[in-house]
Amino acid sequence: MNVKLAENYGFCFGVKRAIKIAEENIGSSTYGPLIHNGKEINRLQEDFQVSLVEDISTFKEGDKAVIRTHGIPKDELALLHEKKIDVIDATCPYVTKPQQICEEMSNEGYDIVIFGDVNHPEIKGVMSYAKKGVTVVESVEELEGKFFYEKIAVVAQTTRKVDEFMKVCNHLMRSHKEVRVFNTICNATFDNQDAVKALANESDVMVVIGGKNSSNTKELHSISKDNCKDSYLVEGPDDLDSAWFLNKKDCGVSAGASTPDWIIKQVTAKIKELS
Amino acid sequence: MNVKLAENYGFCFGVKRAIKIAEENIGSSTYGPLIHNGKEINRLQEDFQVSLVEDISTFKEGDKAVIRTHGIPKDELALLHEKKIDVIDATCPYVTKPQQICEEMSNEGYDIVIFGDVNHPEIKGVMSYAKKGVTVVESVEELEGKFFYEKIAVVAQTTRKVDEFMKVCNHLMRSHKEVRVFNTICNATFDNQDAVKALANESDVMVVIGGKNSSNTKELHSISKDNCKDSYLVEGPDDLDSAWFLNKKDCGVSAGASTPDWIIKQVTAKIKELS
Repeated sequence: MNVKLAENYGFCFGVKRAIKIAEENIGSSTYGPLIHNGKEINRLQEDFQVSLVEDISTFKEGDKAVIRTHGIPKDELALLHEKKIDVIDATCPYVTKPQQICEEMSNEGYDIVIFGDVNHPEIKGVMSYAKKGVTVVESVEELEGKFFYEKIAVVAQTTRKVDEFMKVCNHLMRSHKEVRVFNTICNATFDNQDAVKALANESDVMVVIGGKNSSNTKELHSISKDNCKDSYLVEGPDDLDSAWFLNKKDCGVSAGASTPDWIIKQVTAKIKELS
Repeated sequence: MNVKLAENYGFCFGVKRAIKIAEENIGSSTYGPLIHNGKEINRLQEDFQVSLVEDISTFKEGDKAVIRTHGIPKDELALLHEKKIDVIDATCPYVTKPQQICEEMSNEGYDIVIFGDVNHPEIKGVMSYAKKGVTVVESVEELEGKFFYEKIAVVAQTTRKVDEFMKVCNHLMRSHKEVRVFNTICNATFDNQDAVKALANESDVMVVIGGKNSSNTKELHSISKDNCKDSYLVEGPDDLDSAWFLNKKDCGVSAGASTPDWIIKQVTAKIKELS
């Protein structure tokens, strides 16, 4: 069986940057998982003594707190500073941007619409920067029955599908005087999405590697499934099943933005072994 | 044959307002046709001595110049003031709005995209308010090969179809960081368009009344034709042809925003006579 990697896959700029920051801060703690990949977080713990703190109250004065790529809510950041924690910001700059937009647009009196998952840490952070009047939707249908003033600013979770974002914007643009659309979906997301679509179309079976709580990985898997019905999401080589590759000729592989190369290598090696 | 008027048709707020202004200024001159309806312009000339001036250089100090509903370019307005002409502004407020947007956005460094007809007086006026970097397109296809900076502001000719406007916005939103969409298509246009669509769907034959150089009338006719193949555009009763109504049961009638009621009455009376 042929195993082919997507033209674009895996680590994005923001994840690479955050890992470098963590590696440079031996003995620090990340507040929440630095990236959505448990295996890489374990590696940082073992090789660089970077621990994971889930409860903000456990940080003490002088501690080094690394802010995760997804960012954190504004009041939590203020609390860390107040407690004189040494804050090291590894928030992806593409996430800092929608946070800033939210704050600015809110100050200018725009109603804010965020296209994304209200329970995702990135969105919890972004929405915390709006003063009031912020609405988070995961689909255009969720806009039904909602009221907005004439001026609306729209941002997207960085890892969302652009087509769905367009639907939300179009719905708002039809009936409101000014809709200020900030396309905050990041280019790495675009590139990985385009590449997985192309590869899925020419493959018999697809394996998408990434954390099961990783938003961008789930989107990749969903796009893959739309274009190749036998598409599987795995976190590592142990999740592979030899039955998937029976009578298949071409296997495509992609990986989410938080999936390290060493896991991708392990998975592709195991696929070759199984097929 | 049943003759039925669309639920919304004819004179919009801006046209009604402009005619009232002209009627209140007996003996004045409009610079360019006040509205796109020759018959109504003749009536204003005959009943209120409101003449039509096409050449700006013929205005003399102290003359009363009525600015047409479509507005005029910024430099021409400045020239009228400079020549101490008594300027009476009958520009539709819904047209003044995109002029202001164009000026403000241009000052803030946005590239401006106007969806409309570069040769239409409204657009000639609107685009004159942008300092530089203004692009006028009539379709999404015309955006191909054009380069814009990251921040774009988009406005529409007030009388355009909203679906086409959406296409232009979507194209820009996919690949630019910020697209500020000002939906300047006026509600009267929306309402007349929605109503003509509904009526055309339940009619055997459609008559749309309006000036042949009227943008909004042409759009109404185009929507009508999309929903009822036997759709005709007429300027007045003399354009009607009895052959159109042969073996037809339901005739729908709509009229552009610059079509006065007295013409609509003449046309519907003649349709009944012919059928």
